[in-house]
Amino acid sequence: MCFLCFVVNFLKMKTKKVAIIGASGYSGEELVRLLLQHPHAELTAVTSRQYAGQTLARIFPRFASHPKSKALQFTEPKAGLLARQADVVFLALPHGVAAEYAVPLLEAGCAVIDLSADFRLRSAEIYKDFYAHDHPAPDLLKKAVYGLPEIYRDQIKKAKLIASPGCYPTSILLPTIPLLKAGLVKAGGIIADSLSGVSGAGRKAEVDYLFCECNESVRPYGVPKHRHLSEIEEQLSLAAGSKVILQFTPHLIPVNRGILTTLYLAPSGKSVAEEQIAACYRKAYGTEPFVRLLDGKNLPDTKNVVGTNVIEIAWRLDPRTGRLIVMSAEDNLVKGAGGQAVQSLNLLSGWPETAGLI
Amino acid sequence: MCFLCFVVNFLKMKTKKVAIIGASGYSGEELVRLLLQHPHAELTAVTSRQYAGQTLARIFPRFASHPKSKALQFTEPKAGLLARQADVVFLALPHGVAAEYAVPLLEAGCAVIDLSADFRLRSAEIYKDFYAHDHPAPDLLKKAVYGLPEIYRDQIKKAKLIASPGCYPTSILLPTIPLLKAGLVKAGGIIADSLSGVSGAGRKAEVDYLFCECNESVRPYGVPKHRHLSEIEEQLSLAAGSKVILQFTPHLIPVNRGILTTLYLAPSGKSVAEEQIAACYRKAYGTEPFVRLLDGKNLPDTKNVVGTNVIEIAWRLDPRTGRLIVMSAEDNLVKGAGGQAVQSLNLLSGWPETAGLI
Amino acid sequence: MCFLCFVVNFLKMKTKKVAIIGASGYSGEELVRLLLQHPHAELTAVTSRQYAGQTLARIFPRFASHPKSKALQFTEPKAGLLARQADVVFLALPHGVAAEYAVPLLEAGCAVIDLSADFRLRSAEIYKDFYAHDHPAPDLLKKAVYGLPEIYRDQIKKAKLIASPGCYPTSILLPTIPLLKAGLVKAGGIIADSLSGVSGAGRKAEVDYLFCECNESVRPYGVPKHRHLSEIEEQLSLAAGSKVILQFTPHLIPVNRGILTTLYLAPSGKSVAEEQIAACYRKAYGTEPFVRLLDGKNLPDTKNVVGTNVIEIAWRLDPRTGRLIVMSAEDNLVKGAGGQAVQSLNLLSGWPETAGLI
Amino acid sequence: MCFLCFVVNFLKMKTKKVAIIGASGYSGEELVRLLLQHPHAELTAVTSRQYAGQTLARIFPRFASHPKSKALQFTEPKAGLLARQADVVFLALPHGVAAEYAVPLLEAGCAVIDLSADFRLRSAEIYKDFYAHDHPAPDLLKKAVYGLPEIYRDQIKKAKLIASPGCYPTSILLPTIPLLKAGLVKAGGIIADSLSGVSGAGRKAEVDYLFCECNESVRPYGVPKHRHLSEIEEQLSLAAGSKVILQFTPHLIPVNRGILTTLYLAPSGKSVAEEQIAACYRKAYGTEPFVRLLDGKNLPDTKNVVGTNVIEIAWRLDPRTGRLIVMSAEDNLVKGAGGQAVQSLNLLSGWPETAGLI
Repeated sequence: MCFLCFVVNFLKMKTKKVAIIGASGYSGEELVRLLLQHPHAELTAVTSRQYAGQTLARIFPRFASHPKSKALQFTEPKAGLLARQADVVFLALPHGVAAEYAVPLLEAGCAVIDLSADFRLRSAEIYKDFYAHDHPAPDLLKKAVYGLPEIYRDQIKKAKLIASPGCYPTSILLPTIPLLKAGLVKAGGIIADSLSGVSGAGRKAEVDYLFCECNESVRPYGVPKHRHLSEIEEQLSLAAGSKVILQFTPHLIPVNRGILTTLYLAPSGKSVAEEQIAACYRKAYGTEPFVRLLDGKNLPDTKNVVGTNVIEIAWRLDPRTGRLIVMSAEDNLVKGAGGQAVQSLNLLSGWPETAGLI
Repeated sequence: MCFLCFVVNFLKMKTKKVAIIGASGYSGEELVRLLLQHPHAELTAVTSRQYAGQTLARIFPRFASHPKSKALQFTEPKAGLLARQADVVFLALPHGVAAEYAVPLLEAGCAVIDLSADFRLRSAEIYKDFYAHDHPAPDLLKKAVYGLPEIYRDQIKKAKLIASPGCYPTSILLPTIPLLKAGLVKAGGIIADSLSGVSGAGRKAEVDYLFCECNESVRPYGVPKHRHLSEIEEQLSLAAGSKVILQFTPHLIPVNRGILTTLYLAPSGKSVAEEQIAACYRKAYGTEPFVRLLDGKNLPDTKNVVGTNVIEIAWRLDPRTGRLIVMSAEDNLVKGAGGQAVQSLNLLSGWPETAGLI
Repeated sequence: MCFLCFVVNFLKMKTKKVAIIGASGYSGEELVRLLLQHPHAELTAVTSRQYAGQTLARIFPRFASHPKSKALQFTEPKAGLLARQADVVFLALPHGVAAEYAVPLLEAGCAVIDLSADFRLRSAEIYKDFYAHDHPAPDLLKKAVYGLPEIYRDQIKKAKLIASPGCYPTSILLPTIPLLKAGLVKAGGIIADSLSGVSGAGRKAEVDYLFCECNESVRPYGVPKHRHLSEIEEQLSLAAGSKVILQFTPHLIPVNRGILTTLYLAPSGKSVAEEQIAACYRKAYGTEPFVRLLDGKNLPDTKNVVGTNVIEIAWRLDPRTGRLIVMSAEDNLVKGAGGQAVQSLNLLSGWPETAGLI
Repeated sequence: MCFLCFVVNFLKMKTKKVAIIGASGYSGEELVRLLLQHPHAELTAVTSRQYAGQTLARIFPRFASHPKSKALQFTEPKAGLLARQADVVFLALPHGVAAEYAVPLLEAGCAVIDLSADFRLRSAEIYKDFYAHDHPAPDLLKKAVYGLPEIYRDQIKKAKLIASPGCYPTSILLPTIPLLKAGLVKAGGIIADSLSGVSGAGRKAEVDYLFCECNESVRPYGVPKHRHLSEIEEQLSLAAGSKVILQFTPHLIPVNRGILTTLYLAPSGKSVAEEQIAACYRKAYGTEPFVRLLDGKNLPDTKNVVGTNVIEIAWRLDPRTGRLIVMSAEDNLVKGAGGQAVQSLNLLSGWPETAGLI
């Protein structure tokens, strides 16, 4: 694109006002970072019960050099007020709280991008099974679009309510869905072994996540039935065309950011060749700006994706066991949370999908 | 010593029963570790409001292989009961709480080794100046012995109440006191720049000490008037024979354990030579089991002392500035807390000073 | 045992002289630490080409407080000399080099405990397949005992050449062998997903293991055919009574020490109950001093085993997938290297198996 | 500035071609990152003896999503060729090597921005004193401009050879120079105690910088005469108008990036008030885009500047000692290396000083 075309396009793009409810957690803070540097979005409100009345610059000194950081104050989260301040509202809230904001904001005409798990499932029954309480707004489940742009790009463009996927689901779904859709691997017996940085636990003042409890420590947790299984299995089942039951083991490792997932898959036929896998991934992601297919001897490494919206994927067919090993790496706070949400914002706003993300 | 003499001596040593009040913090846990492996002390009680009724093995799996860990249960801290269970009681409590246990325990005839700051000062006025409230038991201040064995060995042997020094004070006092006593450095203008691992902040569920807030972070804090200044200055003044005002800057760094202190001192005369410093330290510490004087090109490194009761000390005379730079490294939970307290236990019990510490 | 019996037993125990060839790597250094504090072993020689002529205190300041550290100098590794200095010689050498020392030392009458992979396989063919060169001393393969005390205790007691297992194999074999022997899990389809601290790579000056390349990084490596597979599969096959092919994925994570392994196993029958697994493990390891079977909600955490010779094991039957998930944690340099080697030393010397290890 | 003015200005800006000699170290890699995202600079060549012939995408997977990363290959460093490929050449080379490239590049008409210490001193004698060999191109020393934009902005705009300051010097000079120029602090007796992340040591395959040697370790080094002292003292002396001798103690701490410096200064008169210091800093840096003056209770924290070109500065007057404590935090690879070099590139190119840096 010539520079002049770029300028003309740029001028035609309508700026949108955006707000973040729950901007004091790690995902919320990452959204702040991305939206402050976004060329078309204007951050007009950030809420935090804890920090209401204080400026962004005071609470997050890292943003203090941004011109807006001294003008922007945290406010109490009030849906009515936010609906007047913003066209699109991000919800970076604990699971179970998002629905009470989503309903009035949608009614007031805002688009809502929810980073919690509240709208990620289509089935209210499965929600209850995994979250142990009734869904607070079951009607909205059907209206919500699962915000994985590489899979649901067209639906996201037209959505009013986006359920942005979690960090573990993204790291598992993007490598697995194309293989299931192409019938290259069996839907049964899939294993996902995931390693997550500590920011995945949120900015919670709990002893388990103190520096001295995490540093020089590696540990599995939530074995064998982690809550995120529900959304992962629902999406895998849609891709496979049959019910998928997943074995999923999350581990906590001492890094701030990053998820590394190792997947164990069974090729569906005896004749699956390395080249078929490669072709399947090239077809699915060859032109995707945020999926990096590794070739040669390279294997994923979280340090190559931290701070970016990229997911790295590599695979190996093991001739000794017959299995297909697929490995992915992403930044849990970017492609696994805030970055992916901004990718959806770009799509539903008609902006370039990579705006503010590269 | 021949092996037979060793056995005879060993048999003559009277075992003592010891208890820990506040055994769930980092210092308390380190005391548990040291006392479980101690050849002469028998750990008979550990208290924790939070964990009362649960076994040591359950709360601290790292001790679960020790035969006592399943029998020993955390109890509520009750001075009367503990006085019947133990000859010596360690207090690993927050500052300001220790006094309420020390008084009844001493009255009941127990020896008390307090790891808090409550009895480290001789002056109730200075206590009030730094801790902003009246001292709860000012009479005990004069009876307490400052538990720095390399300086107060003889007093500790006869003490009933020992105020075990904090981690920062130990890292500053041991390198500085011999120089002040020998008159080799000036009492004025001393600067101590200290770097501490995160366990120094205790096992407190606060956002500031979460993994993601400490990892990849380095920061000063408590500038310029840190509470520990009071006990450091009192001890330095005693050594110098005149009032010492210290410049002290603590920093938090992302390691679990370890304190590295760099001291900036002014030689008192023009003629101070490297050899005078070396001789002063050799005289003070040449036979000390827990002070390692580094020679040659070696400089202190916390990784060489972590897990041990050793403090490393090195020094350099800078011909360009005329200053004496002294550096020390210690484990803040061992020589800076639990290990030093056990060293005092050994002294007041008539056991070898290194028992259970090497 | 009464104290007098202890003393009598202690006096009857014959001290042995031990030496370490290759004492400057991480495993060698850990052996030095363990042997310096061992009640019955006397460390008489440490070799290192790089540090020959320098004292232990100079090269490893952390040992400088030990009385022997200034007397003990690193020497050039010469088998003839070492055979006169020691009854038992540890080889902490790179793979492929150990054989040239083992042969003359054994001929000279020494016992040899080899920490490399050189004698861990029974088959010279499999060795060649995985290590890409002929085995230098194939006759010794049959004489060597695989030094996993919980499995080969009786053989180790009588052995002259012990092939001490690697860190990954230990973390996989101990949790899996009892289940295979009892026929509770299928021999086919086993997956081991392992996370290792960086010391597992050795003290090698390579860019890949620099602090900045490992910190804030998580990455798989050696996928899918890691060298250690050969010894793991041979041992698993012996336990199963049939050929086992293992899926093994090692990952590098930013901790100094520790291996966490997650195993995915298929129960062999439909009726396998939690209690059968528990009973199997209790029978195998209920009285083992260095195997800690976790119950209740506890899961393994490397921070609970680092610095000890303990391996933690926990398991979960997943009713949703039908799989058995087994997780283990160990210190790769202790139970995965030096500690396990000392455990073998204790066995072949007739000392208590836990001597110097608790 | 209105958007249209922005576009017009943008179009008027002439793009420049830039090259990096030595792009495989940490500073070089950071320059690659900054220049790939720069709006006006076009990266046309990167050199590396080690990686010649390989693409940027292969060696640094983190850049693989950038469109240029597959086209741009590392080449052998040849000054003649580079002079034809670039208008401005960055030298990210070890000290002592830069001069041999600077001379031919300058003769060929390129501007040179050198990140080594080779041209930072004005005096060839001081160079020899600290670097122990004659300066290879003493004539250039007088032509070089010290690339600290906040101090030498006007000279940088017209310079052909820029000696970009090191990370320690930047962290010390920016907080100190305004105070010295204003006569608020004494030129004598200044102490700088600095803590640096490990990337400051470069991507060198040395045992000292292995993960396991740095993690859980804190240590001083280079005490008392570090090489960087020469450039710091020269610049401080210029600011003070008299010879300054600095006490400087660097420490290595386990973070990838970041320098935290604590400065101990003596106010020059009895009457120096907090407000005078504040006014001095406001005057010097109040409108500087990359200097963040902290107010209120905030103290510098490296995590707030990592990844940015910002230096944070805070200060405290200590009424007990009479000293002024000044603390600064910066990213050693950005404001301390690559970012500052790009800031100079912007200045000498007539671009906005913040281009590509915010």
